[in-house]
Amino acid sequence: MKVAILMGSDSDFPIVERCINVLKKFDVTVVARVLSAHRTPHLAVEFAMSAEEEGFEVIIGAAGKAAHLAGVIAGVTILPVIGIPIKSSTLDGLDSLLSMVQMPSGIPVATVAVDGAENAGLLAVQILSVKYPELKEKMRQYKKDMAMAVVQKDISIQSRY
Amino acid sequence: MKVAILMGSDSDFPIVERCINVLKKFDVTVVARVLSAHRTPHLAVEFAMSAEEEGFEVIIGAAGKAAHLAGVIAGVTILPVIGIPIKSSTLDGLDSLLSMVQMPSGIPVATVAVDGAENAGLLAVQILSVKYPELKEKMRQYKKDMAMAVVQKDISIQSRY
Amino acid sequence: MKVAILMGSDSDFPIVERCINVLKKFDVTVVARVLSAHRTPHLAVEFAMSAEEEGFEVIIGAAGKAAHLAGVIAGVTILPVIGIPIKSSTLDGLDSLLSMVQMPSGIPVATVAVDGAENAGLLAVQILSVKYPELKEKMRQYKKDMAMAVVQKDISIQSRY
Amino acid sequence: MKVAILMGSDSDFPIVERCINVLKKFDVTVVARVLSAHRTPHLAVEFAMSAEEEGFEVIIGAAGKAAHLAGVIAGVTILPVIGIPIKSSTLDGLDSLLSMVQMPSGIPVATVAVDGAENAGLLAVQILSVKYPELKEKMRQYKKDMAMAVVQKDISIQSRY
Amino acid sequence: MKVAILMGSDSDFPIVERCINVLKKFDVTVVARVLSAHRTPHLAVEFAMSAEEEGFEVIIGAAGKAAHLAGVIAGVTILPVIGIPIKSSTLDGLDSLLSMVQMPSGIPVATVAVDGAENAGLLAVQILSVKYPELKEKMRQYKKDMAMAVVQKDISIQSRY
Amino acid sequence: MKVAILMGSDSDFPIVERCINVLKKFDVTVVARVLSAHRTPHLAVEFAMSAEEEGFEVIIGAAGKAAHLAGVIAGVTILPVIGIPIKSSTLDGLDSLLSMVQMPSGIPVATVAVDGAENAGLLAVQILSVKYPELKEKMRQYKKDMAMAVVQKDISIQSRY
Amino acid sequence: MKVAILMGSDSDFPIVERCINVLKKFDVTVVARVLSAHRTPHLAVEFAMSAEEEGFEVIIGAAGKAAHLAGVIAGVTILPVIGIPIKSSTLDGLDSLLSMVQMPSGIPVATVAVDGAENAGLLAVQILSVKYPELKEKMRQYKKDMAMAVVQKDISIQSRY
Amino acid sequence: MKVAILMGSDSDFPIVERCINVLKKFDVTVVARVLSAHRTPHLAVEFAMSAEEEGFEVIIGAAGKAAHLAGVIAGVTILPVIGIPIKSSTLDGLDSLLSMVQMPSGIPVATVAVDGAENAGLLAVQILSVKYPELKEKMRQYKKDMAMAVVQKDISIQSRY
Repeated sequence: MKVAILMGSDSDFPIVERCINVLKKFDVTVVARVLSAHRTPHLAVEFAMSAEEEGFEVIIGAAGKAAHLAGVIAGVTILPVIGIPIKSSTLDGLDSLLSMVQMPSGIPVATVAVDGAENAGLLAVQILSVKYPELKEKMRQYKKDMAMAVVQKDISIQSRY
Repeated sequence: MKVAILMGSDSDFPIVERCINVLKKFDVTVVARVLSAHRTPHLAVEFAMSAEEEGFEVIIGAAGKAAHLAGVIAGVTILPVIGIPIKSSTLDGLDSLLSMVQMPSGIPVATVAVDGAENAGLLAVQILSVKYPELKEKMRQYKKDMAMAVVQKDISIQSRY
Repeated sequence: MKVAILMGSDSDFPIVERCINVLKKFDVTVVARVLSAHRTPHLAVEFAMSAEEEGFEVIIGAAGKAAHLAGVIAGVTILPVIGIPIKSSTLDGLDSLLSMVQMPSGIPVATVAVDGAENAGLLAVQILSVKYPELKEKMRQYKKDMAMAVVQKDISIQSRY
Repeated sequence: MKVAILMGSDSDFPIVERCINVLKKFDVTVVARVLSAHRTPHLAVEFAMSAEEEGFEVIIGAAGKAAHLAGVIAGVTILPVIGIPIKSSTLDGLDSLLSMVQMPSGIPVATVAVDGAENAGLLAVQILSVKYPELKEKMRQYKKDMAMAVVQKDISIQSRY
Repeated sequence: MKVAILMGSDSDFPIVERCINVLKKFDVTVVARVLSAHRTPHLAVEFAMSAEEEGFEVIIGAAGKAAHLAGVIAGVTILPVIGIPIKSSTLDGLDSLLSMVQMPSGIPVATVAVDGAENAGLLAVQILSVKYPELKEKMRQYKKDMAMAVVQKDISIQSRY
Repeated sequence: MKVAILMGSDSDFPIVERCINVLKKFDVTVVARVLSAHRTPHLAVEFAMSAEEEGFEVIIGAAGKAAHLAGVIAGVTILPVIGIPIKSSTLDGLDSLLSMVQMPSGIPVATVAVDGAENAGLLAVQILSVKYPELKEKMRQYKKDMAMAVVQKDISIQSRY
Repeated sequence: MKVAILMGSDSDFPIVERCINVLKKFDVTVVARVLSAHRTPHLAVEFAMSAEEEGFEVIIGAAGKAAHLAGVIAGVTILPVIGIPIKSSTLDGLDSLLSMVQMPSGIPVATVAVDGAENAGLLAVQILSVKYPELKEKMRQYKKDMAMAVVQKDISIQSRY
Repeated sequence: MKVAILMGSDSDFPIVERCINVLKKFDVTVVARVLSAHRTPHLAVEFAMSAEEEGFEVIIGAAGKAAHLAGVIAGVTILPVIGIPIKSSTLDGLDSLLSMVQMPSGIPVATVAVDGAENAGLLAVQILSVKYPELKEKMRQYKKDMAMAVVQKDISIQSRY
């Protein structure tokens, strides 16, 4: 179980890190790379083209502004590609969201929320779990823990009133 | 290989049909249902909760306006859930897009473009292909055919000038 | 007179608290809960389904991002449901507003402004006052006090020029 | 049980009519008026101010563009006010939605979707049902019928595949 | 020459003050009031209705969120009404802009930029200058001074390179 | 009483014509010109610079897309300038609205609604009426007629229920 | 003088054709190609990489939705790249505009208006004219003709009033 | 090789400076001016009209809000004009972006991202390089350095996992 997570710039790392942490929690091997669709396009394409052969099963691309990275990768691989739109300093994330999610017919990018790095990790786990049953159990547990955390907070809020 | 495609209203069917056609082209078994997160919530949740046991491996949810269907389903299953935001009569699809893609941390919905039903189908195939190698070959061929179609159009345009 | 106020996450509490304070000011019994449409969907649905029997007369749902909570609750109760869209870290509240207000035909959510928690409380009081005449008097007084506060500020500004 | 539905212009009538039909279906007495916050402000305010005394229990305001009608009414009545933002010829309904829903603290307008006239009617019924138990039964039936209609469509779609 | 400047809330004052300063610079008499279209509607309407008789020649209305103040005033006076949309804590001013500028046919509000209080003052001066020739000279001088200030900055920037 | 109405393109004429009709109804002399801020900038600027001397008292500028016409004119005249943002084939009028209304400090453009040509005409009349009392009477009558038309429609709608 | 104009899909051709016509009018050699950043990425990149050597001096990329074509090309060439965002069936062109214009630092795309194909052609001519003085004369003439056409329309409109 | 960079206000300088630095890095002569389309329109137009004669080959215009500067300049020169939309205090840069990029047919402005000053400088260099081959070599090197910087960051991120 190996997932590649590519970011267009190392400034995306603080957000992307949350995705990596989720994947590690599920014992998924993660390879994190800074590969830009615009500044190092050949490296990005090369990576994506050989990703399947290298044993990757899902690729995650994170980028801001005109966020082409995930789409470019999706063009040269048959692996499922997940996109994390990163909020930049202007336009409040709308630019990266639309640049990622509005992919033309034929080349999907599975887009999550703006800055939604945890969900990109969880989605990768869910995709892998189609093949790896052990991930299903972990995901069930993850959801239970998450529900339990909400219940704790619920109890805490209820106690105030 | 079995995929469920749920739509919030049968008015979504003309868009959703393109997704079904893609899945059938890849010989994926499709079950299409009209299940509303708001009008038949119990049926929708029940379906989603038993989907894994019923042998479904991916669930696709299509809905317009405040498009909660995919998110609600994602809350009660560990299967990967794909969302198709459907453009409604007002706000040009922005409402359904944001309602689907902006899922809170913990519960991802793999969102495709507004009215991007084909891509939802292709994404489901890519997810399934993590497990089923035969789909990889078909997807590779699909991409080749798609490229070939573009090349044909390219030749046609070039011949004009 | 009993109102339930549900929030999707305890991070919504600082906003939601203003709603609770308004309701308490009108001597309405408030039950505040953290119940997520996505993380604890069964608890949320269960709560909503038994709310009428439990004596609740209005339900308020507050949530951010893809804010499904109020809509999901509205699907399983016949009580009036008020929605408070909470501004999240991206997209300036537009996502939660559209996710709440754009409900499909058949299942209304009475939506107030982004982060408009006080107004959700006041709206609940107005709804209750259809039945409880004593609330009408209090509401009339509330409006008078509010007007008086504006008049005070008006006098203060006028005195400057 | 008497509800007033005010529209800012008779061009809003084709949308508003759906609201009236919903209310009539529930045997709620409806008074429909064309009253403009800008062109006949005194009549609109006068109506709103005497509405409570006239036996109205809920007021619905429908308007397009800079849709002030519901807000203006809410300023001069303590009755619950529901707003229907009407899509106009430009900006796809965003202007009327924001003009209605973004009410300042103190004066709520219970806003439904752009052109969401049916839901305004249903919301009015839900508000009335807090007081009138007979409406609760009808609303339960309404929801059942609605669910049944979805089930019919579900069967129809399922039969195709 | 007398201009009324009304604000919906005293929280708008820091922005509105810039408008007052511009008007004072042109020796226009200014009356500043806190009058809310929603909280003190009768006072606002009363003020607007008697404004012409009181000798006001232009009315400026500043408000945020669902900014109805200028529109409501414009409904009950024949004086030219200028609107200043105030940016609130969510939606970056788009709500107040659209609520002000998108007035329906028949009742114009001369809208300036979001938080554009200086321009509201200058516009009032330009409107008054149609009648009072002395303001024309002052306005010409104002524009010259403004141009000169830009020229000074131009010289300063040029000197750097 | 003379008003200039400039349009950036003759394709704006069908909208602009409504403005001309309003002005003629008030017996205001109208000069309509096609002058582009980008295609015939010198003619536009020349017109605006001599407009005051030519006896114009208000200038109206109508333009679509990046609608600079009104702003450019406002830069070279001290007359009040009214802007009509025209909806173009993309972006639903938001581009022309923001291009017109968001004028920087120092140079106001009195902006009306997208395609709000009637209101531009009425605003011009209101501005002129500061100087010409006869217009005040006409405007009062205009508002009465408008109110009466609404009342007629109100009666018509009321008669249906 | 040779310009390449690439479109992501032949459905973009009706818009793109206007660009080709402009370039031909200036006797610029045009090569029009259908090359997709996602469906035929290798062909697109290959074309862009050899474009300089093939004698192209400017590249124009037209695409809709998540419009990556121009950005991808800009990543692999040092030639100036012009982008034409094409309006698609949803979101009114905002998606393609933001996907094109919001390029990250280092890789500019000279973006024109949504569907602004003529301007892309004219911009290419202006860029070429930096090197080819003969184009300057033609451009001057083009602007004169354009101004003259506006003047004709101006005369026609003036004659009506 | 001489480029003019005009800014509408000296408050734009901190952003614009990045553009100047890029141009200096390529040994392009830069003239930076504060010239406003609205406050010093005659100086701006005069500068633009004589720019070609003064030996400028590209003009860059930076402005915020209703950002007319680049468009106005483009109207009176045949030189290629690049626009930098500057984010202002409201509307998150959308106003300046649309005001710049949505130029009507006939007068292009080569628009870069909101606050995208570096890219404006690089685009100017690319345009100049059509004529000056030495810039091509520098641009190739610039791209290599940029790629190398990404590779360094890639190595740094990889080393963490």
